[in-house]
Amino acid sequence: MRDVAIIGIGMTDFGELWNDSLRDLFVKAALEAIADAGVDHVDSIVAGCMTPGLFTGQEHLGSLLADYLGQGPIAGTRVESACASGGLALRVGLMEVASGMSDVVLVGGVEKMTDVSGAQATYALATASDQDMEAFHGVTFPGLYAMIATAHMHKYGTKREDLAQVAVKNHDNGMLNPHAQYRMKITVDQVLNSVKVADPLNILDCSPITDGAAAVVICPVEMARKLKKKPLVKVAASAHATDTIALHQREDITWLGSTAVAAAKAYKMAGLKPSDIDFAEVHDCFTISEICVLEALGVVKKGQGGKATREGFTARSGQYPVNPSGGLKSKGHPVGATGIAQIHEIVTQLRGEAGARQLARARRGLAQNMGGSGGSAVVHILEVL
Amino acid sequence: MRDVAIIGIGMTDFGELWNDSLRDLFVKAALEAIADAGVDHVDSIVAGCMTPGLFTGQEHLGSLLADYLGQGPIAGTRVESACASGGLALRVGLMEVASGMSDVVLVGGVEKMTDVSGAQATYALATASDQDMEAFHGVTFPGLYAMIATAHMHKYGTKREDLAQVAVKNHDNGMLNPHAQYRMKITVDQVLNSVKVADPLNILDCSPITDGAAAVVICPVEMARKLKKKPLVKVAASAHATDTIALHQREDITWLGSTAVAAAKAYKMAGLKPSDIDFAEVHDCFTISEICVLEALGVVKKGQGGKATREGFTARSGQYPVNPSGGLKSKGHPVGATGIAQIHEIVTQLRGEAGARQLARARRGLAQNMGGSGGSAVVHILEVL
Repeated sequence: MRDVAIIGIGMTDFGELWNDSLRDLFVKAALEAIADAGVDHVDSIVAGCMTPGLFTGQEHLGSLLADYLGQGPIAGTRVESACASGGLALRVGLMEVASGMSDVVLVGGVEKMTDVSGAQATYALATASDQDMEAFHGVTFPGLYAMIATAHMHKYGTKREDLAQVAVKNHDNGMLNPHAQYRMKITVDQVLNSVKVADPLNILDCSPITDGAAAVVICPVEMARKLKKKPLVKVAASAHATDTIALHQREDITWLGSTAVAAAKAYKMAGLKPSDIDFAEVHDCFTISEICVLEALGVVKKGQGGKATREGFTARSGQYPVNPSGGLKSKGHPVGATGIAQIHEIVTQLRGEAGARQLARARRGLAQNMGGSGGSAVVHILEVL
Repeated sequence: MRDVAIIGIGMTDFGELWNDSLRDLFVKAALEAIADAGVDHVDSIVAGCMTPGLFTGQEHLGSLLADYLGQGPIAGTRVESACASGGLALRVGLMEVASGMSDVVLVGGVEKMTDVSGAQATYALATASDQDMEAFHGVTFPGLYAMIATAHMHKYGTKREDLAQVAVKNHDNGMLNPHAQYRMKITVDQVLNSVKVADPLNILDCSPITDGAAAVVICPVEMARKLKKKPLVKVAASAHATDTIALHQREDITWLGSTAVAAAKAYKMAGLKPSDIDFAEVHDCFTISEICVLEALGVVKKGQGGKATREGFTARSGQYPVNPSGGLKSKGHPVGATGIAQIHEIVTQLRGEAGARQLARARRGLAQNMGGSGGSAVVHILEVL
């Protein structure tokens, strides 16, 4: 396997972007990544997108994007793993470069979610759960994560305020990110008093409906060295795992098994342990998710995610900063784009280009991207060479 | 890059399978492929499916299929390139094995199309065209291919009967395939007198709406040799290319550029020329497609696809048998499964296990799988070692 480097990054602002279509968004992010990489061509495109068919009536995305980027007849591959589609796209692109099939690959993620009604968006997102066992019976993602939150509070004594603190912390970070959808400070009281969605989760515990795209350019590390791109960011590990797609089939719904398996594989591949990682971008689609993810990543002990958050462990100035970008909660969550936007933030931090939100220690970062209620997870570890 | 072998194959019958769900179909084909391979585990799953969201309300397919196959927490990746999703899945799985990321990968294709009305199915399929420039304005795939047929007849003198002969020949083959959806003989007169769909195409020029799944197990050639699987089938080439997704942007709508580019790459990768190939499974979604594909593959000269068909060049006993399985027309076209079903037929022929439809000469076979009106194409060449 050839080692793979990330040599270019780009992303659109995240938000309700009514003047940009699905293809516009992707092309904007892709052109920025290509310009940043300083390459004059790409051999292939891999795009992550969850459900363009339901959101926009457009499938066949690999070809559409290669075409509208003016790069046809190169290969254009679309991959999907619900909200982990972006992370999965990087993994598939990485295997394409690692195998020697291609040298320079553009990997992007995109979702255009605001062209449909809220009810239609909720239906589209629910296709990431088990249609026969969950969605058909009316449960949606806020409901599924509410069950996880309730179980976590019951089992480990996690407080309602701990959930709120995840949102407060991520908004504190997102305020400093010019690409973020919601750049305003919020307080624990505001979260606790915001409108109820699915008890115990309120609207300020939930990531929003968002349009956006992000892209990176990857190539073999040896080629990247010749391009004299500094600092050079290497993909030290890429791992992907699944869990039962439906919650009722799990032994313990507070444990995100796919994240735990993917993380263990990633640490092994990189030859690292959790404490070797400086910071992480994780999948806080709901506040409870970030708490459970911390535990599955082995960063804190089982049941201690709420306490760690409360004590500032994951704050920007804490021991293990999580979601310096603002996370899905503040930055926004265009589902297919999220996994690549995480990579965008990590590369920005590793390069020391994160401005007001730059972390003091940023040599190694971890990205954890998750599909559904944890039916899939993709974990990447990036490091500066 | 590690060389890759196909060591197991499986497929369901193709048809209107009202007793089988999407997941049932996939699991049936996958278990058959795993049993045929004689392996006790797979490291990863790659599944091609076009639009399970629109057909069944279920995305997140990689996880669903890993789960229902009882193989979680292994990685489960879904890829999509419209009707070329199956072929693309093999290419992505191949890169996973070639890179060394995994050893034994299950690659499947599946589509469950008959749970929706005909109008909904037509809408779902039209998402493979350009939504903004084609589908939104009411054009559907029979209409797009009808334009290609009309142009081909005008430019090259291709006869209406030549189109019909493609269907007649493929039904002659499909009659001998126990998995085929339509196992009946048809005549040129029947095709010409069947109900009009989009002039000049009648219903018997069109592939049907179908449920079905197919799967293969792949691993490094070196590992396959140890498994003593004989005859050993190697993937000699895997290539993928795109074209403009919309027809109006092409210089010549009778020329399938993505197939031509992918085929040229595949011949180069395998070190072969068109005349070195013994037979092919190609994407006859409409009768005109097979004619245009023959030309783009370089098997006949531009404009000669109709004449070659008329003269028996592509018949089972001809110089270059095409679609011995019955093709999409007779075997059926569960869109995401089609690319893998083509591989299933080629391996069956290469192993000499095709029974009544066994070809006399079957050492090297080519599979050409196409998305939309040729916006994407994937070409594989398989050979017996």
